[in-house]
This record gives sequence, structure tokens and C-alpha cells, in this order.
Amino acid sequence: MSNRIDITLGIDIGGTNTVFGFVDRNGNCIAESSIPTNSYEAAENLFARLSIEIVNLYKQIEGKYNFIGIGIGAPNANYYKGTVEMPPNLSWGYVNVLEIIQKYFDVPSAITNDANAAAIGEMKFGAAKGMKDFIVITLGTGLGSGIVCNGELVYGADGFAGEIGHTIYDPNGRQCGCGRKGCLETYSSASGIRRTVYELLCDSNEESELRKISFADLTAKAISEAALKGDKIALQAFDFTGKVLGIKLADAVAHTSPEAIILFGGLAASGKLIFEPTQKYMEEYMLNIFKNKVKLIPSALTNGNTAVLGASALIWNEIDKQTEFTASK
Amino acid sequence: MSNRIDITLGIDIGGTNTVFGFVDRNGNCIAESSIPTNSYEAAENLFARLSIEIVNLYKQIEGKYNFIGIGIGAPNANYYKGTVEMPPNLSWGYVNVLEIIQKYFDVPSAITNDANAAAIGEMKFGAAKGMKDFIVITLGTGLGSGIVCNGELVYGADGFAGEIGHTIYDPNGRQCGCGRKGCLETYSSASGIRRTVYELLCDSNEESELRKISFADLTAKAISEAALKGDKIALQAFDFTGKVLGIKLADAVAHTSPEAIILFGGLAASGKLIFEPTQKYMEEYMLNIFKNKVKLIPSALTNGNTAVLGASALIWNEIDKQTEFTASK
Repeated sequence: MSNRIDITLGIDIGGTNTVFGFVDRNGNCIAESSIPTNSYEAAENLFARLSIEIVNLYKQIEGKYNFIGIGIGAPNANYYKGTVEMPPNLSWGYVNVLEIIQKYFDVPSAITNDANAAAIGEMKFGAAKGMKDFIVITLGTGLGSGIVCNGELVYGADGFAGEIGHTIYDPNGRQCGCGRKGCLETYSSASGIRRTVYELLCDSNEESELRKISFADLTAKAISEAALKGDKIALQAFDFTGKVLGIKLADAVAHTSPEAIILFGGLAASGKLIFEPTQKYMEEYMLNIFKNKVKLIPSALTNGNTAVLGASALIWNEIDKQTEFTASK
Repeated sequence: MSNRIDITLGIDIGGTNTVFGFVDRNGNCIAESSIPTNSYEAAENLFARLSIEIVNLYKQIEGKYNFIGIGIGAPNANYYKGTVEMPPNLSWGYVNVLEIIQKYFDVPSAITNDANAAAIGEMKFGAAKGMKDFIVITLGTGLGSGIVCNGELVYGADGFAGEIGHTIYDPNGRQCGCGRKGCLETYSSASGIRRTVYELLCDSNEESELRKISFADLTAKAISEAALKGDKIALQAFDFTGKVLGIKLADAVAHTSPEAIILFGGLAASGKLIFEPTQKYMEEYMLNIFKNKVKLIPSALTNGNTAVLGASALIWNEIDKQTEFTASK
């Protein structure tokens, strides 16, 4: 046993696919696979299918490794309770995921949402190594966030902290999926920038290749490609997306004063198209004492699927805390 | 020595007066006094005068007590560096306060701003006893805040975290002392509600006793008294003040998901005039998963000067952390 290398399993449950992989203590993904989530299914069915695939994957690498924990990233996950509660894209209702997973695997496990998992991933393996105070912003269809203060992820009193995507930019603004109006994620996300393009196409007479694409077909990638070709509507859309994000990140800085803010996920892949306006407006709207201190940087989770690395980091973090606790006694 | 009761000194440096007192481990203030700050003086002069008064006060109680630490609350204080940096109401510039105080007293000392000290005070002695996640909002001339996550005060990467008063309500809004526009404290503070009254007096033809008071003479207390007599302008001013505060506290909840938010200071003394609209709008503008979870409560630092208790709690907290650390080794 003692010559074997410890590994944990990271599982990321998405609306379409569930990706999983074995990751070592240094953040190297040893083996990875995925299955369809089948969002209409009960959670029990997913985990029954998943457990078979996990065992199959582990058999391929077993001889050299020692499987010591499971970390899970899932929508609306509650770290304290081990539950997933009314996830928007899954027909699960209220499910205790950790209870289910323990039926199949007798190792420590932990669960949180994907943005929190990403934050722990960056802290353990990525761009936030050695940092004690930082924020990860995931720019996907929505906007997720994970906040780390004093070296610890902030779960808050109820386990749901870190919902910067649902801070309000404009109380009379765009309708949000959460039922309110003007949330940050209705502006600064892959779906938000699409709405902004349509607003700009409506308000201006500027020529744009984006006029040929329907709302349903328009993607952040198409907007990014148009911007790189100099399309003014696309460039304005990135500027406005970065402005709203910058203003609300200036607020976030006033709360927890992070050393860095890490942009993660689909829209962050647009690189300087999104980083430059975000940085510019964040500095412009930031309180003086914080100006020119906060780094705005991309994710550095590059040695495998980022969500799997994040989920794995969650349980590595728990294992390390336990080790420190035992060592200090 | 062993029969003596341990006490710490809490010092609150304000623009007008510097208040100080000896406080026991249970948050009882044993003896308290104050001297004028003389804001035009150098910091060294204040501490020279202060040290004499501290010694005099200690002499009155010395026999029974054991003086073991000093906690200081001061504007623009940096916990990490022990400094006060360019305080708005004092002509100090950049001063290392802990270095100065160590010349007079050979005991452990710590410094932070008054809102952070208030937060630690509430955690040790007041309304947040036993809580691990909460926020204290001080509603004075400005709006200060102290944020506690995972049982630790959030100082952030640079020691200046917790500036919720300088989150932006309206990027095109009221001019703030910080040089930007539309900061929360230009709306929700003793000076903010005064501005709101004047806006309402301008916009409406409503009769109001407040029409007889000049802007310079108008106080939050006068607005509160008028509201209690049913003055509609005063009541509308409290409603709007609570609305802006409620919207921005809903944002704060989305960041750190506190168990409670504690309102502290002058304007909080207006009781339900400010608590009711703040609670109402906070719930209205809050993300669903947080609704009806967050308590909005008054300070419970009542056994002495609240600022002195907060400053004292700061050093008690350090002493307790040190004790825990030693015990765990």
C-alpha cells in the first residue's frame, strides 16, 4: 500500500454531461471520463450508472494508486448538508448526494457548487496558489463565484454564499432567471452579452455581421469572433459587459479586498476582449485605497478538465485540513 | 498575581474625542475616561497625553486587576501593518500607531478601524455571540462595516476589507467624500438621510416642519423626531434610506451569506424607523435562497461605551487566538 500514490475522484455534474476523473495531490488528472447526466432522471439513477463507470475507470489505473476521497461539484449544492436543492437544470428536487455516494464508495466525500469548487481548485492547483484572499468568477451561461477569505472558502451561514452573479446592477433592469431584475449575470455572462448585442443592434444603425444571426443562434463565441474582426457592435458589447462586471467587482473588492480576481469559464476565453474593459472599469469605479492592487487574471487550471480538478481539490482540501488538525493535536 | 482579574484596554480614537477604558474578559467596562483628540496635533502628542491618563485611570483600579493588552479602533487603521493611513479627520498622515503605543506599554496591542472593532465586539460580547458569519453596519456620519466569515474578521489582502459604505448604489448618483459618485453612505447614513430630506423637500410640496431647518442645522435626530410625530417628508426619508440600504445589504448577503446583520451607531438608534424599511427592502431585493434567513438586529454592546468595548474585544480576540494556538501545540 505505502508505495501507492494517493488520488481523489473529482465529479462535475452538469446539466448535459457528468465528467469525472482521478486527480493526484499535485493536480494532475490521471484518468478522466464522462457520461450523459440525463437531466430528466432521478439522482439515484445517475449515481447507479456513474458508480459502474467510476469502478471501470479505476480498474484501468488501480495498481499504482490509492483512492482516498470524492469531491463533487453540482448546481445548488450545499456544502454543510451534502445536498443538492432544486437545481435549475436537473429534475432532482431535494437530494442528499453524499448519502447516495456513500452507498457505493466508503471514502470521505464533499460537495459544493461548481464556482466554489473552481475557487478551491485555483487555490490548490491553479492561479491562486499561496493566496489567502481571492475571488473566482465563472463566466458561463450564468455568472458564478467562489470567495476565499483568510484561506477558507466562504460558505456563509447557510452554505450558499458567493452568489455575486445575483448582486443587483440595476433594480429596474433585465429580467433574471431568479425572478428578480437587473442581476449582474443578466449582463455579464455568455447569455448576458447576447442580450447586450441585441440591445445595441436595436439602439444603433451600425452595420454588423451579427444582424444576420438570430437570438437563438447567437453565441458568445460568434460575438468574440466578430469583435476580433473589428465589428463595432461586438466590440461595444464586450465593453458594456466589462463595464457592468467592473462596477460590480469594485463592489466585491469593497467587501472582501481580494489579492486577485480570477476569471474562469467560456466567456473568459475571449481573453483581452473581456479582461481589458473589466479591468479598466473596475479600477475606475473602485474606492481609492483599493486601486491598482487587485490582479485580474485568467484561470490556471490547465492540467485536465477544470471542473474535475476543482471538484477534486474540494476533497483534497478537506483531507489536508483533517491532516493538519490531527497533526496539531 | 494569580488572584487578579485580567483586563485589557480599549481605545477609540475619534475626530473629536479619544475614549478609553479597561474591560474584563466578559465585556464589562471596569473604568472609562476620555480626552480631546485635538485633531490638528501630531499622533505622538495624542499618545503622550493619553499614556498619562491611562496610567492615572489604571492606578484607580490597579490592586485587583492585571493589565494584559491594548486594542485600538481608529479611522483608516490597518490591522496588518499597525498603521493609521491618511485618516480623513486627523492631521496624522501615515503613522505606525502600534510602534508608538509600545513605547509606553509593554503589552500586546492591535489596531483596526472602528467598524471592524465593533464587529469583534459584537462577536465577543454582544449580539453576534456564537455566530461565525455576520456583518456589522455602523450608521454614523458615514457607513462603516465589519464582515465576519468562518468566525474570523475579514481584513482582506491589504487589511482594508469591509468598505460596504463605498459600494456603489448609483454610478451617476450623489457625490461622495471618497471622490466617486453614488456610494451607499451618501444615502444610508446620518448625513445621507439629511441629503434625502432636502431632495424630498425640493421634489414635493408636502408640508413639513423640516422646511424650517437649514441644511447645516439638520440632524438625523431631528428627522427621527419629526418622523415620530408623523411628518411625511421625514417618514419618506427613512423609507428611502432603508430602501437603498436594503438593496445593498441584499448584495452583501449574496457575497457572504451572514446569519445576521447588526445595525450599530447613531442612525440605528432611530429603531424601527430605520429597521422596518431596511428589512422590508432587503427581503424584497434578496435572492430567493436567502430570503427570510438573515436576522436584522440592533447592537447588544450595552455594558459601556460601544467603541471602547469593540476596541477591547479586538485584543481579547488576539489573546484568545494565541491561547488556543499554544494549547494546540
